Amino acid sequence: MTCLVVGSVALDTVDTPFGRAVDALGGTAVYFSLAASLFTDVQLVGVVGEDFPREAVDMLRNRGVDLAGLQVRRGNTFRWVGEYGYDMNVARTLDTRLNVFETFRPELPESFRRADRVFLGNIDPELQLAVLEQVASPALTAVDTMNYWIDGKRDQLLEVVRRVGAVLINEAEIRQLTGHYNVLDAARSVQDLGPECIVIKRGEYGSMMLNGDEICVVPGFPTADVRDTTGAGDSFAGGFIGYLDAHGPGADLRAALVFGTVLASFTVEDFSVGGLARATVDSVGERYHELADVTRIEAGVIQRMESESKGVQV
Amino acid sequence: MTCLVVGSVALDTVDTPFGRAVDALGGTAVYFSLAASLFTDVQLVGVVGEDFPREAVDMLRNRGVDLAGLQVRRGNTFRWVGEYGYDMNVARTLDTRLNVFETFRPELPESFRRADRVFLGNIDPELQLAVLEQVASPALTAVDTMNYWIDGKRDQLLEVVRRVGAVLINEAEIRQLTGHYNVLDAARSVQDLGPECIVIKRGEYGSMMLNGDEICVVPGFPTADVRDTTGAGDSFAGGFIGYLDAHGPGADLRAALVFGTVLASFTVEDFSVGGLARATVDSVGERYHELADVTRIEAGVIQRMESESKGVQV
Repeated sequence: MTCLVVGSVALDTVDTPFGRAVDALGGTAVYFSLAASLFTDVQLVGVVGEDFPREAVDMLRNRGVDLAGLQVRRGNTFRWVGEYGYDMNVARTLDTRLNVFETFRPELPESFRRADRVFLGNIDPELQLAVLEQVASPALTAVDTMNYWIDGKRDQLLEVVRRVGAVLINEAEIRQLTGHYNVLDAARSVQDLGPECIVIKRGEYGSMMLNGDEICVVPGFPTADVRDTTGAGDSFAGGFIGYLDAHGPGADLRAALVFGTVLASFTVEDFSVGGLARATVDSVGERYHELADVTRIEAGVIQRMESESKGVQV
Repeated sequence: MTCLVVGSVALDTVDTPFGRAVDALGGTAVYFSLAASLFTDVQLVGVVGEDFPREAVDMLRNRGVDLAGLQVRRGNTFRWVGEYGYDMNVARTLDTRLNVFETFRPELPESFRRADRVFLGNIDPELQLAVLEQVASPALTAVDTMNYWIDGKRDQLLEVVRRVGAVLINEAEIRQLTGHYNVLDAARSVQDLGPECIVIKRGEYGSMMLNGDEICVVPGFPTADVRDTTGAGDSFAGGFIGYLDAHGPGADLRAALVFGTVLASFTVEDFSVGGLARATVDSVGERYHELADVTRIEAGVIQRMESESKGVQV
């Protein structure tokens, strides 16, 4: 199986209380690809400038990422400058230079048009629609977005949402999109537009998924080792969709949610893609088990209470 | 077994986007008692004025709460006036009238001194110490506190913390208490003072527990039905300690955490104690199962992936 991602490829400059990275590899398509490539074949659609480092290209190639859809244009690569305080759930953007990203038009090579799963990263909804026009009939299409597009291109964004099977979105943004403060209400109102699967990302608190009527909640991976949360949401999406793509129809969506959480946990441990690059099949598997252990609730407790008929009394 | 709670008994006036309650029954000791009395025998230590409504006393008695430690003093009952916006994780206090609570000194009746489990609700740490002096040798003592005491009576509070087995505390407050932003770091530094079990309350996101080296995370009960979160933390404490008291040594702390979460979910559904008063053994058991279902992570996924040796590839 193959999954396709379209999104930013960036050089990020980031300050956090734990250090600083300058012009370091980043962007939705990069984080997604590195995460998903642990599970399946990945096709990347994006654009970089002539200044994009050779080592970054090699790194993606070494993880098996197909870069036939990565355009190289005259000019500089997209740059983002941001900072975080101790609350790393929210970044403050200090500067954005679109550079070659400003005139980006996604063009899918012939070999990309039959991708099985497609992730439309947070870009202009018109470009997301242009990608949907170029793919044949993916088994799953998922979309992410942000406040800027919810405000500025609402109609086009809603058109994208109507045409996908899954929406992965931040808590604050699904509230903004729907006007519902309660996240369950918000998720259900997005389901009413079409998509069956809504995943709400809640930073360090983890995520909540509605898939049809089923609700699933996975907490963030508990760790004291957090340096930079840039790319966590995109790594989450890569783990989620990468797992689903590898396992095809009938794949366990809850397991996908856990793998998303685990991949995000590697990303936040270091600046840029440092943590994610170190993730291996074995270490990902270990954290899956750890998260299962941390959240385990024994279902037999109630039955035991009833059979002992002690304790509970009104 | 018997558990004892000391804390406020209040008449609350609360505004939320979903309505308003005026001079309605509230306070730590009330929420705790109503929650814990679903599991075990509860002894309440607190103070009210002559204006405290007869029906409130009857309601507590009907749930089997022992009120021998409830002092009735000349004057008015403690009153709290607060409001919430849509984000009901944080209340804004508009007015506090201590009234008879200002001169409250906890006095434990003889029959209260052998309680098996003791919950020191959020009151002046000197009063918490006074309660510890009066109890014989409880199997478990737990404490809650707030920013006001962390600032104003830090030394006395740390003395309480050193003498208890469990600390139940909000995320913001454990950060303030320890100076650690990361909640795992914060919890471990409280463990260093003595208590083995640290429960961090995170509002709608649920809770995290460290018990020795074990980490356990339980998300909030997913519900669209939230009207007033006043008393959620105290109901959580009542479910947690009530369950532990009913099941004695060897009781499952994770199950206790889930029962705390479930009892809090009843409280937030209505103003004052309306939701909690309607909770029954059956409805509590149902929500325990629902929460187990919502958080279920299948541990077999990794093994299956390994045995199929497909999907994962680097």
